[in-house]
Amino acid sequence: MTQEGIMTETEVITYVKATLDFFDETAELACTEIGDGNLNYVFHVVDQASDRSLIVKQAGSVARISDEFIVSPDRNRIETEILRLQGTLAPGYVPEVYHYDGEKNCVVMEDLSDYTILRKALLEQRQFPELAEHLSTFLVETLVSTSDLVLNHKEKKELVKSFTNPELCEITEDLVYTEPFFPHPRNDVFAGTRPYVEQEIWGDNRLALETAKLKFHFLTHAQALLHGDLHTGSIFVTPTETKVIDPEFAFYGPAGYDIGNLIANFIFAYVHSGYTSEGAEQESFQAYILETIETLVDSFRTKFVLAFEAKATEPVARYEGFLEHYLAGVVEDAIAVAGLELCRRVIGIAKVADLTSITDEQARTEAEITCLTLGKTFILERANYQTGSSITDAIKGVPPYAGNH
Amino acid sequence: MTQEGIMTETEVITYVKATLDFFDETAELACTEIGDGNLNYVFHVVDQASDRSLIVKQAGSVARISDEFIVSPDRNRIETEILRLQGTLAPGYVPEVYHYDGEKNCVVMEDLSDYTILRKALLEQRQFPELAEHLSTFLVETLVSTSDLVLNHKEKKELVKSFTNPELCEITEDLVYTEPFFPHPRNDVFAGTRPYVEQEIWGDNRLALETAKLKFHFLTHAQALLHGDLHTGSIFVTPTETKVIDPEFAFYGPAGYDIGNLIANFIFAYVHSGYTSEGAEQESFQAYILETIETLVDSFRTKFVLAFEAKATEPVARYEGFLEHYLAGVVEDAIAVAGLELCRRVIGIAKVADLTSITDEQARTEAEITCLTLGKTFILERANYQTGSSITDAIKGVPPYAGNH
Repeated sequence: MTQEGIMTETEVITYVKATLDFFDETAELACTEIGDGNLNYVFHVVDQASDRSLIVKQAGSVARISDEFIVSPDRNRIETEILRLQGTLAPGYVPEVYHYDGEKNCVVMEDLSDYTILRKALLEQRQFPELAEHLSTFLVETLVSTSDLVLNHKEKKELVKSFTNPELCEITEDLVYTEPFFPHPRNDVFAGTRPYVEQEIWGDNRLALETAKLKFHFLTHAQALLHGDLHTGSIFVTPTETKVIDPEFAFYGPAGYDIGNLIANFIFAYVHSGYTSEGAEQESFQAYILETIETLVDSFRTKFVLAFEAKATEPVARYEGFLEHYLAGVVEDAIAVAGLELCRRVIGIAKVADLTSITDEQARTEAEITCLTLGKTFILERANYQTGSSITDAIKGVPPYAGNH
Repeated sequence: MTQEGIMTETEVITYVKATLDFFDETAELACTEIGDGNLNYVFHVVDQASDRSLIVKQAGSVARISDEFIVSPDRNRIETEILRLQGTLAPGYVPEVYHYDGEKNCVVMEDLSDYTILRKALLEQRQFPELAEHLSTFLVETLVSTSDLVLNHKEKKELVKSFTNPELCEITEDLVYTEPFFPHPRNDVFAGTRPYVEQEIWGDNRLALETAKLKFHFLTHAQALLHGDLHTGSIFVTPTETKVIDPEFAFYGPAGYDIGNLIANFIFAYVHSGYTSEGAEQESFQAYILETIETLVDSFRTKFVLAFEAKATEPVARYEGFLEHYLAGVVEDAIAVAGLELCRRVIGIAKVADLTSITDEQARTEAEITCLTLGKTFILERANYQTGSSITDAIKGVPPYAGNH
């Protein structure tokens, strides 16, 4: 299904040659559409003679997630601007942007074909020792510098306007904060998991109320410029490098959003391992995931304080006790988002391979209920998980399907 | 000091005749600049033959509050758009807009010369029995309908962008949330009050911390479209009518902001009466003010619930317990803002006549300390005043200068 205005592979080659001097004039380029995401057409352009390559990402007017969500091609402007901003704030952690074309709604950027998508690598139980340090640095550098802690408040308000992102936010509002928590027709619940969902999620008014509070917090709290969709499918890795991609959901929201999303997606990898591997392999990988979560949270806290001390310009933020209050709020928001993500990937329309790839029905049910149990706990008791170890203790302690299998 | 681009009185007459068909072509118009505010030039244009009149409000590029605050003339666009929006949401409670001119940065609107500024009327101890009902209706109709409770979230985000108001917000951020709470050179503390300020306000780290939290809440919480400067000098009254004017500070912020500001300014009138009148006159007026505050808050709550029930479109907002949670947060924010306003009008650069017109030094000191005591209590214990009577009990109970004098 090619949409109007979307280039063919041949047209992409012509476009790249005419627009950039990235390749030699005489280069023989090959182009393949490799998009497997939901929102864009992604062209991989390579000159096999020189081994140079790049990516052309073009937005269609209709989001590929479903015909029900119509998403403006303006998202590629947002993606370009935020990649450039993140590249300045956290150098090396995002792909380089070579060119943006507002007419064609496309962005030309660094090719990361040598990298692996983190979700895929974690499903293969590969370990990346520096990952948590990389991600905590990326998060702190982008979040602190775009918040009112550091940024001049007038400039921040201009950024809030510039990154207002109503259509992509609506997807999150619906798919993360709303539909999973009542019997919405778009939900997609695995048969074995359904009784738990009906009783413990849809049947719990306390939980519903907390999700409503969180939705309004998400709708109103313009705290820092977020990535907005930072799951393990939005991260490219090599053994030594980490790149965060696909920031087209970027907007100003609660600063804990991204890290919460990450925590949940690491938990999916942990749970997956619990039902698809065993023995020393499982033990090693699960220990790695728990350590990654602990380091992610604890290094985030440490680096946040350091970045604050070095950069904060808002004088009242230096009042005694304020930083602790602010950071506790960020972590509380993160735990809540982890809880929402744990639930919505089980119940809602958008799944994760970590769970759907578990072929045994009983195992998948148990894995999903583990995620839901933890998710519900995180939502209801979100203020109680301020340190990495408190989170990993909760993961290890989930009844009745705790830990190793 | 006439600024570049500001019309003379004669030019205003020519402009009005050329632009609107409000007056007869042959009318002999008189024009007087009557501005006593800080931000605009206000021209009163009248045809004495027909007794018809109107107001032309023109923005200078430099705010008249002080040369330190440079304010964009765009504020007149914001004022025009919000007057039109408020006129639709709460008909009859704002002046009618006849014309807006983006070139000249001026707005032509209904003349309210038959009305009195509420602050002045309250200093004369006049009573307006319907005032609290009018104001609670105005607040509920404008706040609920512009929030995510009612408004489509995409449309709301567009309104947030449209009413982003960095320069006017900065004035509030500085003068309300920052400067009064430490020894800033722009503060202006009455000699008798200074020892109390130094010890109980500037010397209290707990209070400083709470003001910092509140400042960040103000900077980040895009909940509803506010008036943004709703004190008793922004309200015009007759015995039966109430008009809210001067919404050029309008922006999306905490929904309790306006009502909190109003509560504080009613308290200033109450305290003023305590030190400038006596006997039955004082008793009657103070009872009126307390009743006005109680009705304002309790009717606001009642009407808020009714408006919510009638208009809310966001399904999760109807979850059991959510409305109570939301409304409690709005009232808590209101009490905090009342506390900030009570302090900043004593300590900061912008004063209120209610206090400065008290000529006896000891009386002024006592009056100011009463305001500060109450303000500090409201900031520190802002969650504890959910009903009108709890607020008025606090007002009546302020030690050591409680009640009547």
